[in-house]
Amino acid sequence: MAPKKMIINLDIRASQFNAFWRLPETDVAALYDFETYRRLAQRAEAVAIHALFDADSLGINPEDAAYTPSRIFEPTGYFSALAASTSRIGLIGTWSTTFNEPFNLARKLASLDHLSKGRAGFNLVTSALDAAARNFGLDELPEHDQRYARAAEFVEVIRKLWTSFDADALVADKETGLFTDPGRVHRIDHEGTFFKVRGPLTTFRPPQGWPVLSQAGESEAGKALAARYAELVYTGAHNRETAKAYRDELRVRAEKEGRDPDSIKLVQALHGAMADTRAEVEDYMARITALTPATDELRRWERMTGWDLSALAESDPLPPLPDPRSTNNYQTQLIRMHQMVESEGITTVGELIENTRQRKHSKLVVGSVGEVADHMQDWVEYGAVDGFVVGHGDQTRYGVDAVLDKLVPELQRRGAFRTEYTGTTLRENYGLPAAP
Amino acid sequence: MAPKKMIINLDIRASQFNAFWRLPETDVAALYDFETYRRLAQRAEAVAIHALFDADSLGINPEDAAYTPSRIFEPTGYFSALAASTSRIGLIGTWSTTFNEPFNLARKLASLDHLSKGRAGFNLVTSALDAAARNFGLDELPEHDQRYARAAEFVEVIRKLWTSFDADALVADKETGLFTDPGRVHRIDHEGTFFKVRGPLTTFRPPQGWPVLSQAGESEAGKALAARYAELVYTGAHNRETAKAYRDELRVRAEKEGRDPDSIKLVQALHGAMADTRAEVEDYMARITALTPATDELRRWERMTGWDLSALAESDPLPPLPDPRSTNNYQTQLIRMHQMVESEGITTVGELIENTRQRKHSKLVVGSVGEVADHMQDWVEYGAVDGFVVGHGDQTRYGVDAVLDKLVPELQRRGAFRTEYTGTTLRENYGLPAAP
Repeated sequence: MAPKKMIINLDIRASQFNAFWRLPETDVAALYDFETYRRLAQRAEAVAIHALFDADSLGINPEDAAYTPSRIFEPTGYFSALAASTSRIGLIGTWSTTFNEPFNLARKLASLDHLSKGRAGFNLVTSALDAAARNFGLDELPEHDQRYARAAEFVEVIRKLWTSFDADALVADKETGLFTDPGRVHRIDHEGTFFKVRGPLTTFRPPQGWPVLSQAGESEAGKALAARYAELVYTGAHNRETAKAYRDELRVRAEKEGRDPDSIKLVQALHGAMADTRAEVEDYMARITALTPATDELRRWERMTGWDLSALAESDPLPPLPDPRSTNNYQTQLIRMHQMVESEGITTVGELIENTRQRKHSKLVVGSVGEVADHMQDWVEYGAVDGFVVGHGDQTRYGVDAVLDKLVPELQRRGAFRTEYTGTTLRENYGLPAAP
Repeated sequence: MAPKKMIINLDIRASQFNAFWRLPETDVAALYDFETYRRLAQRAEAVAIHALFDADSLGINPEDAAYTPSRIFEPTGYFSALAASTSRIGLIGTWSTTFNEPFNLARKLASLDHLSKGRAGFNLVTSALDAAARNFGLDELPEHDQRYARAAEFVEVIRKLWTSFDADALVADKETGLFTDPGRVHRIDHEGTFFKVRGPLTTFRPPQGWPVLSQAGESEAGKALAARYAELVYTGAHNRETAKAYRDELRVRAEKEGRDPDSIKLVQALHGAMADTRAEVEDYMARITALTPATDELRRWERMTGWDLSALAESDPLPPLPDPRSTNNYQTQLIRMHQMVESEGITTVGELIENTRQRKHSKLVVGSVGEVADHMQDWVEYGAVDGFVVGHGDQTRYGVDAVLDKLVPELQRRGAFRTEYTGTTLRENYGLPAAP
């Protein structure tokens, strides 16, 4: 039987290793030069990667930037610049529904979809850091489920705005002088709990109808939102059984929302570090781990989860982990921590630090190129996921070069990944139905 | 004596003639294709135009789009895509201080400045249409002077954010593992009337220190804001005497704010329609005027000013014009209407409509290429303005082709416009001082 074809998105952030910049081979200046990412995007397009993806954050603490580079480009401009530098690859940015106005964001995404001729995706987040809230007049984040309630209404509003111009609104009749038929342009007159928006949008319907909606987050509220609206869902499951259970659950829940279960795709975050041989990549992993300040890793994680371990010594037994629902920040990060503590048998604070330093909580896959390809095929054949969002490690031959020059070609040779784009728009390339 | 060198920015909107798309030579599909504007930007860069400029609007009424194309691209993505398509020319977009959050906008503009390596400009507007307010939870615009008070605090906040990373904050010491010196990254802890923002920004200081700030608007509140913050001011004066008086006033007011008067530049909007001979361009003007639905022009103007003439017949005498300060919308548009009525000796509603249709209220300059060049040089030599923002008419040989292929080369031959970029950043190219 022919192998199943997988989705591959490329995570274009600099690296999942916070200390990658300390490697002798990392050119720090290049990290802040758009040309670096333009070339990366063009290389990814040359091997038919479905889409580029980037996360985002709306706030940092001064100490956050001390040990690892912070983001330099904000998503609207960044993905638009990448759109102008490519012609086929999808472009999925991350925007917050908590700290944006739906009208502004609907417009930006419609514009990106027009600019890219149908390649835009919207990864929806509710923001999970108090450092973000403090840049928007608040002392801390709105309560978790409130953020998700706002997110749901937000999606309703932007969908209404995206369809406020009928697909045939453009007339452009030079004889009569009618450019747009005002009868095919509609106010939306939305009045809800969070938003009051009259509409219409200022621009024609986006080429994809609406951009591909993607979402991550495995809290109950997050899953409900995904089942209702998301077309692409990100996960970072600890094993293929967990992923399959989640995929099955999403498909059932989507069906209950009246959707075709094939209209929701699950992709697993996979951070690969690979080389021709396992010995070579293990040497690389030892080098990068030695450069990683372990306590800083832990402090970052504490800020994400709100769980404070700073008073404990490394030899202290690990206290019981908090219930993920107890945090108003990243519930998903606490879920990951639970999974790691269980699967690695962690009993002390020191072991937690060491495992964090080795990024056992992230979906790191270390191995030869063939082993990583085997792993990906195994998950897809098992029905755990529809594909992956691959983090490229870093800008070395163990990171992005290995992914684009070795891993993807290997999967193509095996028939597990396409060799060319199958559609014009991102929606078509994912095999997703047209927006209504 | 050598002629004074002038600033030339190019207004990249499709046309100032609302009916331009009805001309047989206009390719309507090209208006919605980013490639059209990419080529335009590259052509403008080839003749050393200082900057590309575009206005913006955050709301339309369905009927607004009926007779003329609406904007398709929003400014953040558009100018970032243009940044990725050029390397020298400045990029000045328009953003509203009323309907954006300062943190989000500071970040977008810092990102554009990094992406373009120091070519970003921020044209600050307070928004003047109730159609915009209705997309942001309001029934009408906040009161005029309130909007300007918010704008002033907005600029204070974004400047603090842009300087929240010291210029030498990036350490990137591979030995010690210190990437950013946290002692050189500062919270801003702003608490004012409109905003509470903790900071820091998420990214390093922009290459220009901060993007070039530009502003238009000739209300008292607008002038006060310009004198305090703006480095580039747009006007649309009816004659060179009015412009000179305004320029002199701005320079005196800037000095009172403790600024060097040469750090504020006044540029006049100039909408050129030109050809090798006057007869040729007059024929073109007759064609475009015949295609322009006059009452629609008037209705658009009514929506901008809030002054309703719809109950009157064309033969009715023109009622007294309202005081510009009476409108909560575009005070500047009412000032223009006053100037036109006076200078053209308009006495009836019909005459107002006909003059509007011929765009006598706009800074239209019709003539041979030599005549338009004479006009521009005359204003600059008189000390009325530092330069122009040239609207290109349309995508025909009377519009953009004439500006870029004939007018600019003519001014270069006369020594009134430079032939190459004199600096790396937009700030340097304007001869503006470095941001503190």
